[in-house]
Amino acid sequence: MATPEYTPFVFLLLLFQSGVWGVPVCQTPQESPTCGYKSCHATKPGMLNVHLVPHTHDDVGWLKTVDQYFYGDRNDIQHAGVQYILDSVVDQLLKNPDRRFIYVETAFFYRWWKQQTDDMQNTVKQLVNEGRLEFVNGGWCMSDEATTHYSAVIDQMTMGLRFLNDTFGHCGRPRVAWHIDPFGHAREHASMFAQMGYDGFFFGRLDYQDRNRRMVAREQEMLWRASESLTPPMADLFTGILPNGYNPPEGFCWDQSCDDPPIRDDPDLEDYNVDDVVTRFLHIAHGQALVYKTNHIIMTMGSDFQYENANLWYKNLDKLIRYVNQMQSNGSEVNVLYSTPSCYLQELHRVNLTWPLKGDDFFPYADSAHDFWTGYFTSRPALKRYERISNSYLQTCKQLEVLGGPISRKGPFGAGDSETLKKAMAVAQHHDAVSGTEKQHVANDYARKLANGWAHCQVLVSNTLSSLSGSSAPRVYCEHLNISVCPLTETSKKFSVNVYNPLARPVSWPVRLPVNGTAYSISDAKGKAVDSQVVPVSQATAAVRRGRGYAVNELLFQVQAPPLGYSTYSVSLLQNGPPSPPSPLPRAPTAVQNKFLRVTFDRETGLLSSLSNLETQQTVKLSQNFYWYNASDGNNSESIQMSGAYIFRPNTSTPFIISKTSLYLHVFQYNSICMRPTKRSRFIPWFSPWVSQVVRLYTDSRALELEWTVGPVPIGDDLGKEVISRLDSSINSSGVFYTDSNGREVLQRRKDYRPTWNLRQSEPIAGNYYPINSRAYIKDDKDQLTVVTDRSQGGGSIQDGSLEIMLHRRLLYDDVRGVGEPLNETSDIYPEGLVVRGRHLLSLSPPAMAADTHRPLAQEVVLQPLITFTDGELHPSTRLEFSGLQAVLPPAVHLLTVSQWDQDTVLLRLEHQYQASESKEHSQPVTVNLQKLFSTLDMLGVSEMNLSANQWKDEMTRLDWKKPLPKRGGDPSVWEVSLKPMEIRTFLLRVRQR
Amino acid sequence: MATPEYTPFVFLLLLFQSGVWGVPVCQTPQESPTCGYKSCHATKPGMLNVHLVPHTHDDVGWLKTVDQYFYGDRNDIQHAGVQYILDSVVDQLLKNPDRRFIYVETAFFYRWWKQQTDDMQNTVKQLVNEGRLEFVNGGWCMSDEATTHYSAVIDQMTMGLRFLNDTFGHCGRPRVAWHIDPFGHAREHASMFAQMGYDGFFFGRLDYQDRNRRMVAREQEMLWRASESLTPPMADLFTGILPNGYNPPEGFCWDQSCDDPPIRDDPDLEDYNVDDVVTRFLHIAHGQALVYKTNHIIMTMGSDFQYENANLWYKNLDKLIRYVNQMQSNGSEVNVLYSTPSCYLQELHRVNLTWPLKGDDFFPYADSAHDFWTGYFTSRPALKRYERISNSYLQTCKQLEVLGGPISRKGPFGAGDSETLKKAMAVAQHHDAVSGTEKQHVANDYARKLANGWAHCQVLVSNTLSSLSGSSAPRVYCEHLNISVCPLTETSKKFSVNVYNPLARPVSWPVRLPVNGTAYSISDAKGKAVDSQVVPVSQATAAVRRGRGYAVNELLFQVQAPPLGYSTYSVSLLQNGPPSPPSPLPRAPTAVQNKFLRVTFDRETGLLSSLSNLETQQTVKLSQNFYWYNASDGNNSESIQMSGAYIFRPNTSTPFIISKTSLYLHVFQYNSICMRPTKRSRFIPWFSPWVSQVVRLYTDSRALELEWTVGPVPIGDDLGKEVISRLDSSINSSGVFYTDSNGREVLQRRKDYRPTWNLRQSEPIAGNYYPINSRAYIKDDKDQLTVVTDRSQGGGSIQDGSLEIMLHRRLLYDDVRGVGEPLNETSDIYPEGLVVRGRHLLSLSPPAMAADTHRPLAQEVVLQPLITFTDGELHPSTRLEFSGLQAVLPPAVHLLTVSQWDQDTVLLRLEHQYQASESKEHSQPVTVNLQKLFSTLDMLGVSEMNLSANQWKDEMTRLDWKKPLPKRGGDPSVWEVSLKPMEIRTFLLRVRQR
Repeated sequence: MATPEYTPFVFLLLLFQSGVWGVPVCQTPQESPTCGYKSCHATKPGMLNVHLVPHTHDDVGWLKTVDQYFYGDRNDIQHAGVQYILDSVVDQLLKNPDRRFIYVETAFFYRWWKQQTDDMQNTVKQLVNEGRLEFVNGGWCMSDEATTHYSAVIDQMTMGLRFLNDTFGHCGRPRVAWHIDPFGHAREHASMFAQMGYDGFFFGRLDYQDRNRRMVAREQEMLWRASESLTPPMADLFTGILPNGYNPPEGFCWDQSCDDPPIRDDPDLEDYNVDDVVTRFLHIAHGQALVYKTNHIIMTMGSDFQYENANLWYKNLDKLIRYVNQMQSNGSEVNVLYSTPSCYLQELHRVNLTWPLKGDDFFPYADSAHDFWTGYFTSRPALKRYERISNSYLQTCKQLEVLGGPISRKGPFGAGDSETLKKAMAVAQHHDAVSGTEKQHVANDYARKLANGWAHCQVLVSNTLSSLSGSSAPRVYCEHLNISVCPLTETSKKFSVNVYNPLARPVSWPVRLPVNGTAYSISDAKGKAVDSQVVPVSQATAAVRRGRGYAVNELLFQVQAPPLGYSTYSVSLLQNGPPSPPSPLPRAPTAVQNKFLRVTFDRETGLLSSLSNLETQQTVKLSQNFYWYNASDGNNSESIQMSGAYIFRPNTSTPFIISKTSLYLHVFQYNSICMRPTKRSRFIPWFSPWVSQVVRLYTDSRALELEWTVGPVPIGDDLGKEVISRLDSSINSSGVFYTDSNGREVLQRRKDYRPTWNLRQSEPIAGNYYPINSRAYIKDDKDQLTVVTDRSQGGGSIQDGSLEIMLHRRLLYDDVRGVGEPLNETSDIYPEGLVVRGRHLLSLSPPAMAADTHRPLAQEVVLQPLITFTDGELHPSTRLEFSGLQAVLPPAVHLLTVSQWDQDTVLLRLEHQYQASESKEHSQPVTVNLQKLFSTLDMLGVSEMNLSANQWKDEMTRLDWKKPLPKRGGDPSVWEVSLKPMEIRTFLLRVRQR
Repeated sequence: MATPEYTPFVFLLLLFQSGVWGVPVCQTPQESPTCGYKSCHATKPGMLNVHLVPHTHDDVGWLKTVDQYFYGDRNDIQHAGVQYILDSVVDQLLKNPDRRFIYVETAFFYRWWKQQTDDMQNTVKQLVNEGRLEFVNGGWCMSDEATTHYSAVIDQMTMGLRFLNDTFGHCGRPRVAWHIDPFGHAREHASMFAQMGYDGFFFGRLDYQDRNRRMVAREQEMLWRASESLTPPMADLFTGILPNGYNPPEGFCWDQSCDDPPIRDDPDLEDYNVDDVVTRFLHIAHGQALVYKTNHIIMTMGSDFQYENANLWYKNLDKLIRYVNQMQSNGSEVNVLYSTPSCYLQELHRVNLTWPLKGDDFFPYADSAHDFWTGYFTSRPALKRYERISNSYLQTCKQLEVLGGPISRKGPFGAGDSETLKKAMAVAQHHDAVSGTEKQHVANDYARKLANGWAHCQVLVSNTLSSLSGSSAPRVYCEHLNISVCPLTETSKKFSVNVYNPLARPVSWPVRLPVNGTAYSISDAKGKAVDSQVVPVSQATAAVRRGRGYAVNELLFQVQAPPLGYSTYSVSLLQNGPPSPPSPLPRAPTAVQNKFLRVTFDRETGLLSSLSNLETQQTVKLSQNFYWYNASDGNNSESIQMSGAYIFRPNTSTPFIISKTSLYLHVFQYNSICMRPTKRSRFIPWFSPWVSQVVRLYTDSRALELEWTVGPVPIGDDLGKEVISRLDSSINSSGVFYTDSNGREVLQRRKDYRPTWNLRQSEPIAGNYYPINSRAYIKDDKDQLTVVTDRSQGGGSIQDGSLEIMLHRRLLYDDVRGVGEPLNETSDIYPEGLVVRGRHLLSLSPPAMAADTHRPLAQEVVLQPLITFTDGELHPSTRLEFSGLQAVLPPAVHLLTVSQWDQDTVLLRLEHQYQASESKEHSQPVTVNLQKLFSTLDMLGVSEMNLSANQWKDEMTRLDWKKPLPKRGGDPSVWEVSLKPMEIRTFLLRVRQR
């Protein structure tokens, strides 16, 4: 044991040690933990050191639900029981102090931990303190990297790491990020990991061509510079590619799920094989050393749900180490040891080499020439949307927990909490959750968990809104407004509408409510009348409602809500009966416009024909239509790969057009003349019985909304279909387009090209698809056409000026990557195939101004207002408007996190939402005064944390990979916080409710 | 813990406590073991007590070899690793003192034990002393019951139980016999278990009709009276039928190999199922109680190779017990507890009921109407024969170890031992070994192990014979004399032949040696010339030799050897060149005879036509021929069952005749006239290219020898074949025939009939097959025709006067009982199909005299002389004859075991080999004086043991099932040992080499 140096990190005691509370509280440790780098086994400098890393990879849901995996239920689907894994590993670690194990997924560890006795908990603490059990990654799950939004990833990492911190102190803090399974790797994830204080990052999957080149060049370990905006080394992350994915070398899998021969070392029994095992191992070790740079190599000794019976692994690993190292007395120069990723990383760091630098990302991932994992960018579009709005709802819920104080959790409407939705959102970030690569019953379980989280949040929201407004009138939630279903508004003659805005700036928002009246009077919080109109429910909406509502009309009006606050609108029925149908114009109009945009349509086809920005006086030719790729069924001469949940493989590179024309183009005129609609104009092109779209241009909006509805995708022809919306423009995009990474920074994508190797393109469509989390754009010198999406989708730019986004997929075959089901979604409500609806928001700007539009626009889509209802007349004393902020924040600043941490503390994250140089106006440092932030909270103290809030920022000393750690330019005061482009800063605030 | 009562049974210290050594040595125990019945958990008298018995069933070879099973190698064939099972169970027992486990197969436990540290060994001792780990059965393996010979079964049980005794003392002594898997149950096994001191016996498999009746009648538990000769309760054994074979009730298998839902008792997680589990369990328990007699029921919680990860089982069983017993506070009257078979048995005994009595056996076993497990009676006939002669060789080896003293184990020829062959023979008794129901590679492994055992014994035998004879000339072993292969005799001009006789009476034996000379002179130990003749090697033998020898002739002569001793014959070549062919008689003879028998043949067919006993003047019509049944391939209207390694299912009830005539019938005349051959007459009928037979009548023999050679069985017609030899006689057998049980007592078999239930016969052939271990007969008032076999075979009497015996099976389909291979034996030497050779010995007698012939005859077949060779002239000082006995034992007494036990002790078993009443002359009590037994050993003391030698006979107090334990009629003195019919007595002798 080394000399004690670290004190145990007891979070609550140390919480206020930092700056503003004066002298830090220190504890003399009773025991001397030697966890972390100090607990590593010694290596032998002159030898090839082989770091054996026993590990298990426990998917937080995939073929089974997370709880089925935990308990080992439904082993008929897959043999896997995490409760037993942890039982077994702890037992086996106790048998030999040399043994090591790493654990990754806190969602599982948490479940296990709360079932353990005090004795067992103490035993495990001891193992953690001695570095024998080490947490790596440590988030609630191992998130997907292609389809997750950074805000949800930060949340789930924060939750997992906080549990480890609260439970184990500093020995529970992972030093290494570990994304061994996700199907490609996002630069934004690396950036986040760096800001969370990780010293290194290891993964298993990358393009096979990339891997081959890196093996030859010994560039499987590198420094990833993961941001173009943040000052290095802030987003620099040492990144290593594991040698065998995350599996053991061939022939050395000793799990109960494997069949490799055990070490048979009793000479009295048959088949003594020690010599054979040692020879094979040395051969593999020497071979592996050839494709890495140092005299240290790592071997992952484990795989999916392994170590349920850890004895099999450890008993044989003990023998392997003994017998291989015995050969040293015969001149062998191979030294094998139990290790962990951080111990391996420490040795790489000690070697003090200069590592190659990586600037782009690891998308798309192909494991063979026709096997591009680009299908899951879109798989399960409904789940992807539900996850995204659940994030919005969770942020609102957490804000209202802070703004409401204790009454939010126990108030007039009962016990509410944000915890349930936090956990549901955390598991939904898993790389087989929002990714859409789980079995159908598991997807249902994720959705069920989210719905349960919503229910718990709704009580909390009701409690807080009741407290803030002074009205305890029952609050009604309508979760199906997107298909015009809301029992209250459909029947009530008088109701109020509360619009809560989770953004730090005011928003204006069009509200569309299902009603059966023909005229309503609406007044805002100040009693002022608000314009409204009533229009018939669209045919497309009626078709997808399936008996869940019977509104014949929609009531439309524009609402406004203050930052981090709400505004209340009162609605009264004036007149019943169907609306008088607006008289169609004598002939189909060819254009609509508002003060910002003008859109024209082709008279013959009804399709979009051009888009103009009236402010900047720029116009592009623009058409849009729907197509489908015929999914490969594997009956292909070149390879048998099918399109499936993971993989996108079109049978031909030319998609089939669904309809060359809109089936009909109606333009209704409301309130004002067609060309200058007061509220909006809308077009309802039906492209086919299973694809339709409403085009909306809102009065106050700089974006054109395309609301698409796709499904049930027909499969009567036995052809799997992957449906895209394609924009074709006159923009000279030169084979380049842009996609965001996890909703933040944008990366350039070039057709048939990868920045770090000479690509041999083998899939002209799938090989050019990239994940679009929140936006994509094409541009030339003059024009940038940006699409903001409402969920993660895959897309590409196959032709210059063209941008296609995949909306929905319905497939007939499994793609043999393990899920074992074709992605063929049906449900009770849609037994003939899932119907999915969503929105694309189009904007046109000069490139230098585009971010000024798409950044706030995307923010409004990600954090949408929460609309709640109360029936009848509100009590006159009701507070109709509220803002939690003292003032609007600067436009560059996004209030990323406001969340109750402990009784008196609030977790706050402020984010600069612009990249460096993307906006002349906004890509500048900006300062916020925390004292002047909240209207309802007194600030008693502040401590800055790392991004995941499990370390004080000033204690965050990451391994330095030959780069000096620059000192931050000081903030003007502890309260004045400055943010540079793309920076996120995380604070714990000690507060008191006013 | 209860008051200590037993002293730890430290075998060496207590070894001489008994009678002849005076005052017993007693030890005050340091600890107070509460093993055995004292360690059982309390039950609740007013409730239904459910005894949960965690157990694993570890086949000592089946789909994998015994060492593969031990290590968990070849998990691709079957996931099973016994080393891990024992590791895991011990770990889990330590976690909760309430938990129990039973272990059965000492072959595995021994392997594991010797790899453990002292600490672990002490831990396990503690568990055994506390009754938490209990051994049941405890033999080296769980023997097959249909095809094993009692002497080998006693040996393997003795070896396993001795290991437990030596290791754990009295707490290691199993109280219960446990044959949960063997495919039918032999009465002789039950008799042996009773004599080994077991209090009860449990098994899982019996005829489905029998089981159904017993369930209705609540007769699944009974008292088995397992001998018609031994005085009750000497062979009485309480016998219980387990409720689910040996598996857990449906839905309650929590092994890693099962998919049943675990108990999910965390209300915070999904799928809480405690109520469901408890309800299902109570339902099953109540249902089971309906088919048993008492308020105690047993549930076997385990199965094949389960508990490799015992945590899964115990964690859920702990919960099951907790939650089911919690219901008692709500009025439930079910009490669940961890238990063992002995604890369950104790409760049954306490109930003090009168149990039904069982007198017959449990053969044949059918699990459904067309699924009779009667094929394995014959499966792998070559392995069955190899096992049988290995037993003979082992007995010789053990005798020579005693007779040779220490020099036998370390002498002029190096280190020899009997241990290796003991172990090989012990594993060969397993119910998937000699039974022939293992995979081919496993059968090969059993044979390889036996061969290795032979090699070790050969060194021992050479050492002893060298010591006893005073000649250290190298000793040559010829193991292929049955196919006339022996390099030494084929080439040598002068050699000596040593014939060792393991029986306690002198034997005369025809020797047949492969030679290339035409005339030899032979002299016996006294220098007297011995008649001999040289005949050509038969065509059949030449055909099966396959280049392994090139003798053209066979040298024939009769040898004699003294009891437990040898005689040496010297052989010198007189003349080279082929023998002058004996002139065929002018026409085929129709009869041969010696002084005991006369045999006639049909002139037209060449087949046997009659057999006469010349002494008793009785004659029966008798023909014999070969037939084959067409094995069902499952394409049958009634059921899809195929014939396979386990199951015999002929497609039709009429077998196909192979040839209606012998293809040619040559009678050669030797030395004397044909009708009175000096040495023997032989006939070589070829029935077809793949079936042949030699009929021999030896001068001194009361039996006619039919040496059959079968194979390669042709399968070019895609028909599986099951080849029989059928005797058809004029005996009026009235649907009855007789078969022995494990080579000892004989049971009556009646066609289409079972003694204990009204049989609905559904397979007219297979349903009338029974195991024949050593003999079968048919009889009427006057005539008994007995066939003694040289190995275990299946057979039946389908027509009156007929007796058929299955010789060989070659099948094209697996019979879906797990082995997963068709029984289609080939080998390197016989790639086109295995050729098998064997002998049937026929005798004809009046029924009351038949045993006088077949008992000694079968004994000679089981314990055949060992023939060894030395090349060249023997040194004149060589001792050419030796007997280890002072005198010949009485004819009724068989020297069953002579085996070195410890340095100064010898294990002796004396057996009365006649049944009560079967022989007027021999079925009488007989007395032996142990002092006068051995010629080379001084008797210093004697202690009588139970049959398995793990208890002093006078301490053997079995549970008394309402029967008084009769005191034995005292022996005349400690040295004068009397034996009643079918009695075996077991002694430890303290000896000194003279």
